[in-house]
Amino acid sequence: MTNKKARITLVGAGPGDKDLITVKGLKAIQSADVVLYDALVSQELLEEIPANAIKLFVGKRAGVKCKKQEEINLLLVQAAFEYGHAVRLKGGDPFVFGRGYEEKEYAESFGLPVTVVPGISSSISVPLLQGVPVTSRGMSESFWVLTGSTKSHQLSKDIELAMQSSATIVILMGIRKLPLIVDMLQSAGKEETPIMVVQSGSTQEEKCVVGDSSNILQQVKENKIATPGIIVIGEVVKTHQSFIKQKAVTEWNQ
Amino acid sequence: MTNKKARITLVGAGPGDKDLITVKGLKAIQSADVVLYDALVSQELLEEIPANAIKLFVGKRAGVKCKKQEEINLLLVQAAFEYGHAVRLKGGDPFVFGRGYEEKEYAESFGLPVTVVPGISSSISVPLLQGVPVTSRGMSESFWVLTGSTKSHQLSKDIELAMQSSATIVILMGIRKLPLIVDMLQSAGKEETPIMVVQSGSTQEEKCVVGDSSNILQQVKENKIATPGIIVIGEVVKTHQSFIKQKAVTEWNQ
Repeated sequence: MTNKKARITLVGAGPGDKDLITVKGLKAIQSADVVLYDALVSQELLEEIPANAIKLFVGKRAGVKCKKQEEINLLLVQAAFEYGHAVRLKGGDPFVFGRGYEEKEYAESFGLPVTVVPGISSSISVPLLQGVPVTSRGMSESFWVLTGSTKSHQLSKDIELAMQSSATIVILMGIRKLPLIVDMLQSAGKEETPIMVVQSGSTQEEKCVVGDSSNILQQVKENKIATPGIIVIGEVVKTHQSFIKQKAVTEWNQ
Repeated sequence: MTNKKARITLVGAGPGDKDLITVKGLKAIQSADVVLYDALVSQELLEEIPANAIKLFVGKRAGVKCKKQEEINLLLVQAAFEYGHAVRLKGGDPFVFGRGYEEKEYAESFGLPVTVVPGISSSISVPLLQGVPVTSRGMSESFWVLTGSTKSHQLSKDIELAMQSSATIVILMGIRKLPLIVDMLQSAGKEETPIMVVQSGSTQEEKCVVGDSSNILQQVKENKIATPGIIVIGEVVKTHQSFIKQKAVTEWNQ
């Protein structure tokens, strides 16, 4: 046991680009005694961890469960009691589908002080980095962020309701459910609503395709788009460069 | 005219706390020749602007229109051509109800290179800093962000649909519409859904009240909650400390 005071900081690392962490988040990492990090956290960011601090990988990736949430909760608490300042570094924002709230609640039940530092959520920033705003006057006055992977491993039931609205729909962790989403859009009479799928937004591996319900599955297949990725549905996708180009080509051929 | 290459960076300053800007955003400010900033950007952050750079206030606040959007667009372009690297520093995230996309489009129409740096959106971070997650397993599997102030100065029509869903509803710039929102909740049979109202989240002036449709207006009045603020509606508000305390007191008195 160390003399250092046990405490926890949950930090949102942002979408992937090292410099998209907040200044506050970076300071937390630089003062960490131990860091527990996810698969989606970049190698470059991990280099900011002090040399004498301990690094623990607790990643989960779609299809491959490395550690159960309960194990991570326990490990985080143990790490704080053993080493002092434990930083839990999570991709995106800790309170957006990150199970960060569960980690906070668990740690607080041991009397540990927990600070949460927000992160840049991929729900907003990944479209932005593709030049697509989640809201824009006259095009979309709201946005709805859903998960493709709920507790019951089903698509959120809210998606049907979302498709009736004029909101920009952003679906995280939903790429495997894309065929189902396309079906739902067609049933809702939204065959022509623009769709964008982005893999690994803000990183070197970033890939993006745009289309609509008639061709997006083919686009995803041809361009080998894989997880982790996000799906954006709505008029705002029309502002994407590829969409503008596609439209110009179609009109030229007509 | 200067020899420096004219370019623009739109930077999201985050919710108010100086250290909640991204590292990338801070670097942009530190390399600016001219900065155009909003009312919601903190004084401390402005101190990061180089001493020889020019600072221009182009703020808008509820009820007081300082500059029209068209004037800001033009000023931004002129500033870049005149001084070089023009940074447009906006509260929150530039692409969430920030009219940032319009600024980008306008500047690009002059051939200016525009980079957009995402910011921490108050829609997610202001609840987080109050200890409230916008999503949490078993409680809320999606969140919907709307504006209280659309182009037509009306409440977004999507709000009625949002109230039928199980999404956490986050309303930005909606405090003046709170009586109307309370009416809508009551009409939708959601009298008891928890509501949180936060003013000036993440800053020294932060204030927060929680309640439901029966008492939130009184709470807001008694605690003199004013703009800028956000409204959060949904089960997740039950995780707020004051809500937990209120409930304990009620149960004790019964």
